[in-house]
Amino acid sequence: MKIQWFSWLITGALIFPGLNAQQASDSLFIRRIFDEALVNGHAYKKLEELCKGYGSRLSGSDQAERAVFWAGNMLRSYGFDTVMLQPCMVPRWQRGGTELLKVSSPLLNKRLRQFNDTAGWACEALEERYRKQASWYTLPACALGGSVGSNGIISGRMCVVNSQTELQTLGKAGKLKGCLVLFNEPFDETKISTFSAYGGCVYQRVNGASMAARYGALAVLVRSMSNSCDLHPHTGVMHYVDSLPKIPAMAVATSVANTLAAVANDRDLVLTMHLDCQTLPDRQSHNAIAEQRGAIFPQRYIAFGGHFDSWDQGEGAHDDGAGCMHAFEALRLLKALGYTPRHTLRCVFWMNEENGARGAAAYADHAAVAGEFHVAAIESDRGGFTPRGFSIDAEDARIDSIKTWAPLLAPYGIHLFEKGGAGVDVAPLKHGPSSINRGMLQMGLIPDSQRYFDYHHAETDVFESVNRRELHLGAATLAAMIYLLDQSLDRD
Amino acid sequence: MKIQWFSWLITGALIFPGLNAQQASDSLFIRRIFDEALVNGHAYKKLEELCKGYGSRLSGSDQAERAVFWAGNMLRSYGFDTVMLQPCMVPRWQRGGTELLKVSSPLLNKRLRQFNDTAGWACEALEERYRKQASWYTLPACALGGSVGSNGIISGRMCVVNSQTELQTLGKAGKLKGCLVLFNEPFDETKISTFSAYGGCVYQRVNGASMAARYGALAVLVRSMSNSCDLHPHTGVMHYVDSLPKIPAMAVATSVANTLAAVANDRDLVLTMHLDCQTLPDRQSHNAIAEQRGAIFPQRYIAFGGHFDSWDQGEGAHDDGAGCMHAFEALRLLKALGYTPRHTLRCVFWMNEENGARGAAAYADHAAVAGEFHVAAIESDRGGFTPRGFSIDAEDARIDSIKTWAPLLAPYGIHLFEKGGAGVDVAPLKHGPSSINRGMLQMGLIPDSQRYFDYHHAETDVFESVNRRELHLGAATLAAMIYLLDQSLDRD
Repeated sequence: MKIQWFSWLITGALIFPGLNAQQASDSLFIRRIFDEALVNGHAYKKLEELCKGYGSRLSGSDQAERAVFWAGNMLRSYGFDTVMLQPCMVPRWQRGGTELLKVSSPLLNKRLRQFNDTAGWACEALEERYRKQASWYTLPACALGGSVGSNGIISGRMCVVNSQTELQTLGKAGKLKGCLVLFNEPFDETKISTFSAYGGCVYQRVNGASMAARYGALAVLVRSMSNSCDLHPHTGVMHYVDSLPKIPAMAVATSVANTLAAVANDRDLVLTMHLDCQTLPDRQSHNAIAEQRGAIFPQRYIAFGGHFDSWDQGEGAHDDGAGCMHAFEALRLLKALGYTPRHTLRCVFWMNEENGARGAAAYADHAAVAGEFHVAAIESDRGGFTPRGFSIDAEDARIDSIKTWAPLLAPYGIHLFEKGGAGVDVAPLKHGPSSINRGMLQMGLIPDSQRYFDYHHAETDVFESVNRRELHLGAATLAAMIYLLDQSLDRD
Repeated sequence: MKIQWFSWLITGALIFPGLNAQQASDSLFIRRIFDEALVNGHAYKKLEELCKGYGSRLSGSDQAERAVFWAGNMLRSYGFDTVMLQPCMVPRWQRGGTELLKVSSPLLNKRLRQFNDTAGWACEALEERYRKQASWYTLPACALGGSVGSNGIISGRMCVVNSQTELQTLGKAGKLKGCLVLFNEPFDETKISTFSAYGGCVYQRVNGASMAARYGALAVLVRSMSNSCDLHPHTGVMHYVDSLPKIPAMAVATSVANTLAAVANDRDLVLTMHLDCQTLPDRQSHNAIAEQRGAIFPQRYIAFGGHFDSWDQGEGAHDDGAGCMHAFEALRLLKALGYTPRHTLRCVFWMNEENGARGAAAYADHAAVAGEFHVAAIESDRGGFTPRGFSIDAEDARIDSIKTWAPLLAPYGIHLFEKGGAGVDVAPLKHGPSSINRGMLQMGLIPDSQRYFDYHHAETDVFESVNRRELHLGAATLAAMIYLLDQSLDRD
């Protein structure tokens, strides 16, 4: 492996931008992968079946279980060497039937009466909706995943915090006591990758409830994790610190957060919240796995996949039906082209990435126990948009070696080869307690990120938000990388 | 200019991937451009005003004229050094009130009765719509721009041609006589750039009517120029050969083309067409222009823009409201950052690109007469999607020089610097009859192309199909390139 990579590095440098003989042959095969994906791709159609036939797939829900069995049957219908459902226990949080957030604010009433569209660049979608309504407004909001219920109606004044510093300042001054705290730090729009902006804000959603409970807050509202200014609340996982009171947590749409922040100094503003979400006992679920056996190293695995569960808003189309269909389609493409892999290729639909990653843990545990030696794993969990490249969890020399493949993928618009994490579902394989897969290569597919957080964990993440060609290009890109890894790994 | 470019080329090669001192300074300014665009961008809001306030802008229509005056006022409101409306005469084709295409086919009836969703990968959207309807079906279709009316109802059998060869074979055998000919060559889905696929098919739309009239056809239907399989007809310009009979031409949705082709051997199939479109006398319209005067070379221009007219389907959001807003926003960004340009920067909204390019001709003529020396021109007419790079109409050495700027733009996902045409609106400046601008540099902004032909010239090309961040990234990319050109050109 290292020898070939080094020789590519050297010859690549000498004859760039041309291709050497091996690369010329690889280039032809990669062209066939893309042709098959773009002309006969199955991923889009299967994503439609999944999204429209089963909808969202919250871990532990009946819908998720029905969908897992669809996945097993779907994979079996393609005649892969092995298809199996790998059991794992998953948590079972339920939203419940009552989910209400209301506001009463004289200042908001006044503002809505004065509303006009010339105000400038702020997004006033919410105000437009409500300008002629009565004085109690029901706000677009939804419980965060894992929240406790409100145990009746919670009512109180609102405190807005725009940063962690502000939270601490207000909290230490006792000003958050008895409040419903609105976490309102927006995405940093200057980040070119929207995932960087998400990374900078998501503490509010994950840890906000306990951070505010420490200072005596009654409940928290969290500005939706989105670049878009609209009326869709975006849910997502949250965690409690066991030593602190567990208070309920809701996501509010970004437009709601803007509007509430604009009337934050209304002393007469009252919020009321009513939630009856709850956590039931764990339930058995499954990872779905399909394999094509390796001809030379059948006991060495290249795994690739996405997560099959989703939040209960929308249909989990981009997050992460797309990643699962990328993986399934990559395996199908290589099979359809008559490719005999050197290593065993394994497509995995991991269960429960969103609120527990129990499927990933079960997969890694099983690999450790069964001695399944993984040479590489690739995760796709950033949506079904035009693919741009890969993040690579490996030492620099290996990344440099992979970069020598850039000319092979450039014709397809692939240009990013970045050092970085691969994903939540493959990480336990390499970074978990077992040592068998410590040295493995891990990668994540990077699609264009601009639209991702318009849909992420919201009712807008539906099949219609996925473009056929973008999805199929992603699957072909994944298949091409699997092919290159399969051909180059274990060459020494 | 050449000296600096060469020095960049050399030092760039020596210290790559670092930046030299000039590039480090450029890098900081480009970061400011992107920050301003992403945080305070005006393009998206102004595109909304244009699309929702005025809608489509077919050349010569009242809507287009009202929108041009909006554009002038909008540009004036920003306090640019000069804002002007440059007159040009434009053609005035009108769709008319009657636009009908119907089919009667016993085979289609049978097929619809048998329709079920398990048929596989073909797109059956049309069949799903009609399966329970009566035997005469009204098909989603619209006149091509420039088509004559049908002068009453045209009725006849259908002939399907899937290639130019097939057209000639059938035509020479006399089999197209008295037919309504369906041109049904689909996009080549294996092309990664959808514009390549478009280029391979668009002859059907532009020349199909005369190609079929040569063989005695009564009318033509043209498969929509789209990657998407759906029910939206895509219009677009068509031309007649004067020496041949002028027969009417309609676009049919891709799903319609698939369905009609599937029942092509039904001897009892009858199509009827009724169109009353017409061409009225030319009308005066305008290009809208805004300038920031150059401090060092006020008589040398860097022009950039998109076309302001659109087809009468949808709202001309991606085609080409987005390109106009890219250009306006680029000028605004540089002004907002307090940048003093060396050359005069000119934002142009060209009129009538779609069916005549009269605005471009008027602009080039005026430049020739007035001695407006252009050092560069950049066109944006490929939609408001995530920007990927530039096509460059220049000699190879100059393209290589521009490529040395790649490290400056890579952080923003810009990676394509390709030799290629710039666009219909800037071409007459360089390639037209006047020689004053023969040596100029021309470029075209290249956004991601995967979704473009889902919207192009169809009712789906509305404001909602544009993503705010994608649009603003495009504007910032254009502004960054204008800045780099302004700084580097005329250095010798």
